Amino acid sequence: MKKWVYLFEEGNANMRELLGGKGANLAEMTNLGLPIPHGFTITTEACMDYFINNGVIRDDILDQANKALKLLEEKQGKKFGDIDNPLLVSVRSGARASMPGMMDTILNLGLNDQSVKGLASKTGNPRFAYDSYRRFIQMFSDVVMGLAKSEFEHVLAKIKSEKGYTYDYELTSEDLVEVVNTYKAFYKENLNVEFPQDPNEQLSLAIEAVFKSWNNERAIYYRKLNDIPSDWGTAVNIQSMVFGNMGDTSGTGVAFTRNPATGEKNIFGEYLINAQGEDVVAGIRTPSPISRLEIDMPLVYKDFIRIADILENHYHDMQDMEFTIENGKLYFLQTRNGKRTAQAALEIACQMVDEGMITKEEAILRIEAKTLDQLLHSKFDEEDMKTKACIGKGLPASPGAAAGRVYFTAMDAKEAAKSGQRVILVRLETSPEDIEGMHIAQGTLTCHGGMTSHAAVVARGMGKACVCGCNNCDIDEVGKTMTLGGKLIRQGDYISFDGSTGYIYYGDIKTNPAQIDGNLEKIMAWADEYRTLQIRTNADTVKDAKRAREFGAEGIGLCRSEHMFFGSERIPEIRKMILARNTRQREEALVKLEEFQYEDYKGLYEVMAGLPVTIRLLDPPLHEFLPKADDIRDLAAEMGREIEEVEAHCTELHEFNPMMGHRGCRLAITYPEIAQMQARAIIRAAIDASKTIGQNVKPEIMVPLIGDVKELQNVKATLVNEIENVMAQKGVKLDYSIGTMIETPRAALLSDEIAQEAEFFSFGTNDLTQMTFGLSRDDAGKFLNDYYHKHIYESDPFAKLDQNGVGKLIQLAASQGKKVRPELHLGICGEHGGEPSSIEFVNQIGLDYVSCSPYRVPIARLAAAQASIKLNK
Amino acid sequence: MKKWVYLFEEGNANMRELLGGKGANLAEMTNLGLPIPHGFTITTEACMDYFINNGVIRDDILDQANKALKLLEEKQGKKFGDIDNPLLVSVRSGARASMPGMMDTILNLGLNDQSVKGLASKTGNPRFAYDSYRRFIQMFSDVVMGLAKSEFEHVLAKIKSEKGYTYDYELTSEDLVEVVNTYKAFYKENLNVEFPQDPNEQLSLAIEAVFKSWNNERAIYYRKLNDIPSDWGTAVNIQSMVFGNMGDTSGTGVAFTRNPATGEKNIFGEYLINAQGEDVVAGIRTPSPISRLEIDMPLVYKDFIRIADILENHYHDMQDMEFTIENGKLYFLQTRNGKRTAQAALEIACQMVDEGMITKEEAILRIEAKTLDQLLHSKFDEEDMKTKACIGKGLPASPGAAAGRVYFTAMDAKEAAKSGQRVILVRLETSPEDIEGMHIAQGTLTCHGGMTSHAAVVARGMGKACVCGCNNCDIDEVGKTMTLGGKLIRQGDYISFDGSTGYIYYGDIKTNPAQIDGNLEKIMAWADEYRTLQIRTNADTVKDAKRAREFGAEGIGLCRSEHMFFGSERIPEIRKMILARNTRQREEALVKLEEFQYEDYKGLYEVMAGLPVTIRLLDPPLHEFLPKADDIRDLAAEMGREIEEVEAHCTELHEFNPMMGHRGCRLAITYPEIAQMQARAIIRAAIDASKTIGQNVKPEIMVPLIGDVKELQNVKATLVNEIENVMAQKGVKLDYSIGTMIETPRAALLSDEIAQEAEFFSFGTNDLTQMTFGLSRDDAGKFLNDYYHKHIYESDPFAKLDQNGVGKLIQLAASQGKKVRPELHLGICGEHGGEPSSIEFVNQIGLDYVSCSPYRVPIARLAAAQASIKLNK
Repeated sequence: MKKWVYLFEEGNANMRELLGGKGANLAEMTNLGLPIPHGFTITTEACMDYFINNGVIRDDILDQANKALKLLEEKQGKKFGDIDNPLLVSVRSGARASMPGMMDTILNLGLNDQSVKGLASKTGNPRFAYDSYRRFIQMFSDVVMGLAKSEFEHVLAKIKSEKGYTYDYELTSEDLVEVVNTYKAFYKENLNVEFPQDPNEQLSLAIEAVFKSWNNERAIYYRKLNDIPSDWGTAVNIQSMVFGNMGDTSGTGVAFTRNPATGEKNIFGEYLINAQGEDVVAGIRTPSPISRLEIDMPLVYKDFIRIADILENHYHDMQDMEFTIENGKLYFLQTRNGKRTAQAALEIACQMVDEGMITKEEAILRIEAKTLDQLLHSKFDEEDMKTKACIGKGLPASPGAAAGRVYFTAMDAKEAAKSGQRVILVRLETSPEDIEGMHIAQGTLTCHGGMTSHAAVVARGMGKACVCGCNNCDIDEVGKTMTLGGKLIRQGDYISFDGSTGYIYYGDIKTNPAQIDGNLEKIMAWADEYRTLQIRTNADTVKDAKRAREFGAEGIGLCRSEHMFFGSERIPEIRKMILARNTRQREEALVKLEEFQYEDYKGLYEVMAGLPVTIRLLDPPLHEFLPKADDIRDLAAEMGREIEEVEAHCTELHEFNPMMGHRGCRLAITYPEIAQMQARAIIRAAIDASKTIGQNVKPEIMVPLIGDVKELQNVKATLVNEIENVMAQKGVKLDYSIGTMIETPRAALLSDEIAQEAEFFSFGTNDLTQMTFGLSRDDAGKFLNDYYHKHIYESDPFAKLDQNGVGKLIQLAASQGKKVRPELHLGICGEHGGEPSSIEFVNQIGLDYVSCSPYRVPIARLAAAQASIKLNK
Repeated sequence: MKKWVYLFEEGNANMRELLGGKGANLAEMTNLGLPIPHGFTITTEACMDYFINNGVIRDDILDQANKALKLLEEKQGKKFGDIDNPLLVSVRSGARASMPGMMDTILNLGLNDQSVKGLASKTGNPRFAYDSYRRFIQMFSDVVMGLAKSEFEHVLAKIKSEKGYTYDYELTSEDLVEVVNTYKAFYKENLNVEFPQDPNEQLSLAIEAVFKSWNNERAIYYRKLNDIPSDWGTAVNIQSMVFGNMGDTSGTGVAFTRNPATGEKNIFGEYLINAQGEDVVAGIRTPSPISRLEIDMPLVYKDFIRIADILENHYHDMQDMEFTIENGKLYFLQTRNGKRTAQAALEIACQMVDEGMITKEEAILRIEAKTLDQLLHSKFDEEDMKTKACIGKGLPASPGAAAGRVYFTAMDAKEAAKSGQRVILVRLETSPEDIEGMHIAQGTLTCHGGMTSHAAVVARGMGKACVCGCNNCDIDEVGKTMTLGGKLIRQGDYISFDGSTGYIYYGDIKTNPAQIDGNLEKIMAWADEYRTLQIRTNADTVKDAKRAREFGAEGIGLCRSEHMFFGSERIPEIRKMILARNTRQREEALVKLEEFQYEDYKGLYEVMAGLPVTIRLLDPPLHEFLPKADDIRDLAAEMGREIEEVEAHCTELHEFNPMMGHRGCRLAITYPEIAQMQARAIIRAAIDASKTIGQNVKPEIMVPLIGDVKELQNVKATLVNEIENVMAQKGVKLDYSIGTMIETPRAALLSDEIAQEAEFFSFGTNDLTQMTFGLSRDDAGKFLNDYYHKHIYESDPFAKLDQNGVGKLIQLAASQGKKVRPELHLGICGEHGGEPSSIEFVNQIGLDYVSCSPYRVPIARLAAAQASIKLNK
C-alpha cells in the first residue's frame, strides 16, 4: 500500500518533494536531535490524489493519519479529545517552496467543550485554556470555513466594550468562557451547523482545507509570479502543540541567522512574550527585537543561538526559524532557507565564500538571478530629495526607492496602475489578498507589523520597496485619506519612501539609476568567469546603449531601426514615405530619413566602440506610423494633398492581422528603396564611425520575418548591391555580415536552406511564440487569466520561453543551421533573452549569445553563469 | 565543355527537360523519319544560365549555335544571309510545358535587303520574297523589339488605302518593296537604329528575346496558374524555313488527332491556303476545316492522315500538330499531346482504354484532376433559357455555360470582377495580354479566329467557356458597346452563352448544377478502385451535404458550426449571447441557439445516413458576429440596453490580430456554456437522427485551435460531462469520438501529447499555413504579387500546400500521433483538401482522408486514385 504519511523521524531534508519544505525540515531537525515537538506529515502526493479523486480524501490517507496520531498520543502520553489530558495539535500547510498564498496554520486543534476543561485542569490555567479555545474557534472558522476573522474581532470588541475593557489581557477566564459561547453561537448562526466537537472531524476538515488552499486564487497568482508548477501540491504537517501563551515565561518568535534585508551577519528577529505564533506574523502586536530575549531569558537565548548556529552550518545557508518557548523551554517549529532581498543575497553569498562555507559556484547558484532587478533600478535623486518634506519613518522592511500616488486598497491600486499611474499601496497591515496589489505597486507602506510581518516578507520576496510598522500613521479607510507628520494625504496624492532607511516623504521624488559596484560587481566578475554565453543588449538609442555597456553588455544584439522613426521631426518624414504615390516620391522622403538613420547608427557604433552592433531592418507594418485626426490635416497640407485623399490612403493600409501582414522582410521586398536607404545609412555610418573610434566597425544587418530562403536572397541582393556601391564611392572596404531573424515557424523548419544565405540567426522569440501558439500578444489578455485558473498555462509564454513547443523549433533550427554552416552565429533577442530559465535553455542547446534590455544585462550575466555551472555539474 | 546545343537528330522525346517539349518532339519526329525541316535546339539550361549570368548569353552558347547553323547550311545547301540562295530559319521558344505567355515564333529570319533578292530570284517569286521580308520585319519588331504589331498594321492599311486596295493579296511585289521600305523607316524612327541587316545579329537578338520572354508578366502569371516552377527555363528551336505562303499549292495548318473539345475520334483541325503559321493561330483570317484539305490536295491529305496516325500511336495520346505544305510537299513543324477540355479528356481516356491503347491506370493518370471542375459546374436551366432571346452563334470553342455582364477589355473585366460581378469578356480576338481577364471571366466571346485561335486554346486550357469567331458581332471599342442579332449591348449588360453549342443569348440565364454520369461516372468508378484515401466533404448545410453525397463524398470531414449562426433569425440570438453581461444571460441566449443547432445537426446526420459527420465547435473570434450601425440600435432595443453601452461592448471585443486572438478552443475554455450547448445539440440530434435513419449515428466532435494538450483536456471534460448527462437523461448510449484540429504549429510539434487525448487529428491547413508562414490570408494580397514577380513564391501557399514547411509539420504530427495512438484517424480539411498536389502529398505520408468542398469531391476522388497509382509504381 502506498505510504501517504511520514512521522518526522522517518523523513529528512532531501524529501521536500514528498514532504514539502516544512515537513522535510522538521524531519531533518528531529533527526539532528533538536527540540522539535513530535508530529507527522501527510505527503504532497496525498494532496494531488485529493484533486484527482474529485475532492475526496481517500480512506487510506485518513487511516494512515489516524495511525500516526495514535503514535503521537502514545509519545505524548495524551489523548486526542480527552477530557483529562487532551492532545492538541497544529495543522500547517507546506509545499516544496514556501507559498504565502496558501492556508498557513491552525493551532490548538483538538479542543472542544470537554477537552478545554481537561486543558484547564491539567495546566491549572483556565484562562489560558479558554483563550486557546477562543483562538482555535476563530482560526478554524476563518481558515477552514471561510468566516472572516474580522467578524470575530467585532464580537470580541463588543464584549470588551460591554465590560469596559481596553486590552485583551483584561479578559478573565469567565469572560473568555462567554467569548467562546458567543463565538460558537455566531458560528452556528452563520454556517447553520454547530461548531464541530469531534476532534477527528476537526482534523479531517482542516486537512481538506489545506489541500484546497493549494488552488485558491492567491496561491495560483503566487505560483504564476514564482513559476511554481500547479502539480506539486502541498503537504500537511500535524504536530503536537507547544504553547507560547502560557504566561510570562512563554513566548513565540521568528528569527533569521543573518539580516534578510541587508545580509549583515547578526541574528535578526522578533518575539512576543505570552503569545501564539500568528500574533507575530499577522503584525497585530508589534513585537520586541530578538536581542530583548537575551535580557528576558538569557539561558533560553543562549540555547537559541547555539541551535541557530547548528542549523546555519548544517544547511550552509541563512536560516529563517520559528520557535516557541513554553514555560521556559525552547522548541523549534520550523526552519528554512530565509528569503532575502537581492542586496542581502549578494552580501550573504560573498560572506559565506569568505567564510569558506560555500564555493564561488555555490554562491553564484544561490542568488536568484531575476532578483538583481531590485538593485538595478533607481535610487532617489539626492538634490530632488532635499526639496521634499520628510513626514515620517517606519521600519526599513524591503529596500528600494518608491514614489507614486497613494491608494488604500489593493483594488484601487490595481485600477490606478492599469491606467498607467505609479502607485504606493498604503495599508494598516497586509494580508494574502493584497499580494497582487503589492506586485503592481512601486512600494507598500503599512502602519502595523514588524520586519517579519506579512508585508515585509512578501515585499522582500518580490523585490519591492516596503516600509512597515509606521505606527504614527493614521488611516481613514472610508474617507480614503491618511495623516502622517501632520500632513493630510488624500488618495491620489504623491508620497515617496526609501525602503532601505524607512524614511517617508511628501511628494514625488525623482530617482536615479543604480550602479554596479560592491558585492554586485564582485558577483558579476565571478559570473563572467563561468559563463560561456555572450550577453548583448537590445538598444535603439545612445542612452540605452551606454547604460547597457555600464551593465556589461558585450554588443548590441538588436537595434530596432523603426524605433528611431518616432521622434517628432522624423515621424512626418516616414509618413510621407509611406504615403508616397510612387517610387520617386518615396525616394525623396527617404533622403531625409537616411540622414536621421546615419546619425543614429553612427552614435551607436561609437558607444559600442568596436563591439558588435546588429541592426534589424524596418520591421513593423507601415500603418503603425500613420497619422490620426489633426496629424492627417497637417500632413495633407504639407504634402499638398486633400485631407480625404490622405485619409483614404491611410484606410487602405489597414490590415486585419497586422502581426502576420505586410511587415518585416516583406516591406524590403515590395519597397526595396527602404532597405537600400537603410543599407546606405548603416554602411556610411560604419565608415565614418570607424574613423572616430580608430578601429573598423563591422555592422551586422538582420533581415526580419524570413519564411523562405528566397526572401533572404532577394533582400540580401538589394543590400549587398547598395553596400558595395557606397563602399566603392567612398573607396573604403569594410567587413559586414548579413543574417536573419528566425521568428516564423517556417524559418525554423527550413533553417537548413536559410543558413546557406545567413551568416547569423537571431531567434525572435516574441514573434516565434505568437506564431507557434497562434496567440496574439496584444489580445491574449482577454483569456490568459482563465488559462491560469484552469491550470492550462503555468506561466505567460511571452515572459518565460515555452521550451516544449517554441524551444523545439529553436533547437531544430540551431542544429540544422549549424550542420549547413558550422560557423553560424546563434543568438536570441526578444523578451526571453533576459529571463533566467530561458537563458538556461538556450545555453543548454548551444546558442552563442542572448540579447536583452539594458536593465536585464546583469541578470543575464548571472543566469548565464548559473546555466554553465549547472551544465558542467 | 558543356553541351548547350543539340541537333534534332541528337535528341529524343525523353529529353523534354533539356530541350523543351517542342524541341524534344521535333527530335523524336526526326528520328521517326518523318518529314521535319532540319534544325537544332538551344537548351533550357542555356536560358537559366543567361539569367544567372546577369542577362548575358555566354560565348560558348553562341559558338555552339553557330556551329549548328553551319551544319544546317551544309544540309540545306544554302547560306545564312546569302544573296543567291539564302538560308532562312524560324526561331521558336519551347519550355517543358507549353506556355502561351511566352514569345512564340519568328519566321523568315535571315532575310535582309540582299538575301530577299536571292529568295526572289531563287523562287522566281519576288512577291513572295518581299511578302516574307515584310512579315519578318513586322514579327521581329514586335516580338524582339517590342514595337506593337498594330502600328505596322496601320502603316500597311495606309498604303493599301492610298492604292485603293481592299485585300492584302492585291499588293504587288512593287507595293511590297514600298511596304518593306516604309516598315524599315518606321523601325528606325521608333528605335533610333537601322533594322539589323546582319543575320547573325538578327539571330542572337531573337535568341535573347526568347530567353527574356520566360520572365515576362504573362509568362509569370501563366506559370502561377499552372504551377510551373520558375527555374525550368525555355529552350530555343532554330529550324530551316518551309513556306506555306508560296502560292495555292502551299498552306499551313493546325490539327488534332481527336476533337479537343468533345474527344470525338476524328481528325480535327484547320488550315489556310497560301499562308504562314501565325495567320492561323492569330485568328486574323478564318481558316478552312481540315476536311477541306482532302478536296484541295487529296494526296497531301492522305499523307497527313498517315503521319497523324503514326504520331498518335507512337505517343499513345491525342496529338496537336502544326504542319506546312510547301509547293505540295507536307512538313510537320510540331507535335505535342493536345490540350483538351475535361469532357474531351474523359472521352479520349475511355476510348483509348476501349481501344487497348492504354491501361485504366494510365487513363486515370492522364486526366488532370483539377480540370474536372469544368464538368461539375452548372449548365443552363432549360426553362429559363426559353425565356431569353438567342442573338447569335459562334464556334463552340470551349464548353460550359457562361452568363455575366459584358466587358470589352481585360482591364475593365478585372475591375468589375473585383467588385464581385460575374463578367463576360468580349474581344475582337484575344492575345496573351488577355489571359488574366479570361481567367476571372465566366467566359470569353471573340469575333475573329477559329477553333484553334488563341482564345480557344487558352480557354480550353483553363476550362473556361468560350465561343469564337462570332463574325456577325460588331464591337465599338470606344463606345464600349456591341451589336449582335440586332441587339445593342452596352458594357455592363448581361449576356449568356453556351460554349458547347456556340449559341449566344441576351440576358442572364440561370444555371443548374451538373450530374456525374457517362464517362465521368466511369472514370470515378475506376478511380475508386485505386484510391485508398477516404474523401469527405466540408459542408454546413443540408443542401451542400446532399450535393457532396451525389458527388461521392463518404462523410462530412468539417461542419463549421459557426456558419449556421448567420441566418437572419439566428444572428440576433448569437449577438445576445456574445453581449451577455453574465453567465446566466449567456445561457438564456444559448437555449434558443441550441434548438437551431439541434435542427441543423439532425438534418446533416439524416443526409449522411450513417456516414461519419465531424462537427467543429465554434471557432471564429466572437466579434465577427457583432452588429454594425442600425443593427446595434435594434439589438440594444431588444436587449433593453443603451445604444452607447452596446457600442462600447462591441468596441471592447475588438482584437488587434483576431486570427490569433480569442477564438477556437479558447472560447470553449472561457465560456464553457457555449461548448456545453453545442455538445447537447450534437448528441440530442444524434439520438433522434439515429431513430429516423434506423442506425446509430456516431458524431465526431472536433475541438479547434488546440496548442496544448491541457486545452483539449479541459474542453473534453466539459463535453464528456454534458454528453453523458444528456445520454443519462434520455436513457440512450451512443458512441461518439472527440478529436482535434491540428492548426497551430505548436499542436503539430506536441502532437504526441495531444494524441493521448484526441481520437482523431484533422489538419486545418488554412490556419496552419497562416501561422507557419506568419502570413495572414486576408492581408497577403498586398504583397503576394510582388512575391510572384520576384520569384519568391511559385504559387499561393493557401491554394497549394507548402510541402516543405507546412508539410513537414503535418508529417511530424502524423508520425508522432500514430506512435502514441496507432489507431489515430488522420485527415485534412481546409482548401488544400481538394487540391491534387496536396492530395498526393497527404496520401504519400499516410493520412486516412481528405475533406473538401462538395464541388471538389470528384477532383479529390480522381487525385487520390492518381496518388495511389503513383505511389505503387
